[in-house]
Amino acid sequence: MRIDLRCVPCNMQAMLRIMDENSIEREEQITVMSGFLRKMAKMDLDSETPIDIGRNVGESLELVFKGSDPFREIKKASNKALLEIYDQLKQRLLRLPDPLKAAIKLSVAGNIIDFAPGHRIDIDRTLEQALSQQFALDDLDLLVSRIRSTPDMLIIGDNCGEAVLDKLLMEIAAVPETYFAVRSKPALNDITMKEALEIGLDEVATLVDSGAEAPGAQEKSMSEELTRVYSEANIVISKGQGNLEGLSSAEREVFFLLMAKCEVIASFLGVKKGSFVAYRKA
Amino acid sequence: MRIDLRCVPCNMQAMLRIMDENSIEREEQITVMSGFLRKMAKMDLDSETPIDIGRNVGESLELVFKGSDPFREIKKASNKALLEIYDQLKQRLLRLPDPLKAAIKLSVAGNIIDFAPGHRIDIDRTLEQALSQQFALDDLDLLVSRIRSTPDMLIIGDNCGEAVLDKLLMEIAAVPETYFAVRSKPALNDITMKEALEIGLDEVATLVDSGAEAPGAQEKSMSEELTRVYSEANIVISKGQGNLEGLSSAEREVFFLLMAKCEVIASFLGVKKGSFVAYRKA
Repeated sequence: MRIDLRCVPCNMQAMLRIMDENSIEREEQITVMSGFLRKMAKMDLDSETPIDIGRNVGESLELVFKGSDPFREIKKASNKALLEIYDQLKQRLLRLPDPLKAAIKLSVAGNIIDFAPGHRIDIDRTLEQALSQQFALDDLDLLVSRIRSTPDMLIIGDNCGEAVLDKLLMEIAAVPETYFAVRSKPALNDITMKEALEIGLDEVATLVDSGAEAPGAQEKSMSEELTRVYSEANIVISKGQGNLEGLSSAEREVFFLLMAKCEVIASFLGVKKGSFVAYRKA
Repeated sequence: MRIDLRCVPCNMQAMLRIMDENSIEREEQITVMSGFLRKMAKMDLDSETPIDIGRNVGESLELVFKGSDPFREIKKASNKALLEIYDQLKQRLLRLPDPLKAAIKLSVAGNIIDFAPGHRIDIDRTLEQALSQQFALDDLDLLVSRIRSTPDMLIIGDNCGEAVLDKLLMEIAAVPETYFAVRSKPALNDITMKEALEIGLDEVATLVDSGAEAPGAQEKSMSEELTRVYSEANIVISKGQGNLEGLSSAEREVFFLLMAKCEVIASFLGVKKGSFVAYRKA
């Protein structure tokens, strides 16, 4: 996906919010902002993707976070909140007429579950919201039938929290060979190898380091391992906006599962902001 | 006022909006955005003001507007809409117990009058809204009493539309020597000499070119003429957010009249966003 210029101020605002939430002093914030501006000034806005802006954000934030992960606590909290209800969600899904389709819907809804710290997630409400969603682009039935007969499947992961629901999806799908790709470095609240192991994703999938040091996978920056799995897998599922930004012009078939959280993504897909999407790009 | 880093993405969004509203093609928008990023990358974010960001926006937009004023039509329309009801507003004010105070309030409210094209402004509603406003910082009575006895006064203008209400204020105040400062070059919908003459501000004031090529006056960039008037006038009134950004640390007494339209300005003044302000800086 090419850059919509609105992605520049939007990424900037996210960068400032991250620093504010971590009580970074003005002087250091200026260092980060100036670093970001210098990177952006050199960027070819016509040929790069929104993910490249995200990578600039990440690299600029490193000037003050220096290897510590500003999202570490929130990532742990959201994973924990969903792991606590994992077994109950699984039992509830298995009692439904089509557990696999329900698990896919739930894994898309993972994007919007409210992880208020110190509160247990309301299982009834979460399930009801997830299962009652109308999908603005709806290739769910096709995806379900493909999963039932595939020998292998790759899911390219997105956020923590959501990734626990991807685990549930992979367990219920029970595809013989399942791969799950994680970011190579912390990027926003996206899942890395560290959190993937913490939530036991290795129990249901072979974990693959994606090579992505930004909040989205791109064919041009995939690790050797991911390149192999990605090109050979019978089904590739891309979760979330970031991966769509990087893979929208993928050279192979990809199933995109996401909620369209911003105007740019919504208008790219031709749906309303807030829509749920299960879109097969042939 | 120093730069709040949130001013950077905010200015960027305004710049993109201006280009969208003028149907500027993506390729040209990229040229403008890249130009803006290069200017911002060189900027000392610690020592310059938000107005300097606004000047960068203006200079970057020149790359595509090349001397034509993207706000020309909207400036004419908002001036016209208020000129049409000028005489009626004047008659109504003159029947009030304190026409001068009412005229000041109305000139602050000029910031938020809705100039929907093709619609006449509702006089009753406008007056009622303006006169019922509670001011979060309220030096109105002091300003009124000072105006009644001053031999001279300078108003540093802000938007078109609003400037018609400044004209009404100056007519009702009838200060022996009145000066009105305008921007030296188009900057957003701010008033320049051209529009000031169109609305007959020269009938009630001596017009002064401010030297400001950005959406706000600053002591460091005032024209020679404004520097003289500004330093000698018994009363200086600064209209709007832009002039506050540039003059908040002025070396002389200034009366700031504005609505706090954004979080940055509101928190700088210690008021809620949306507040009306008449603030005397000693």
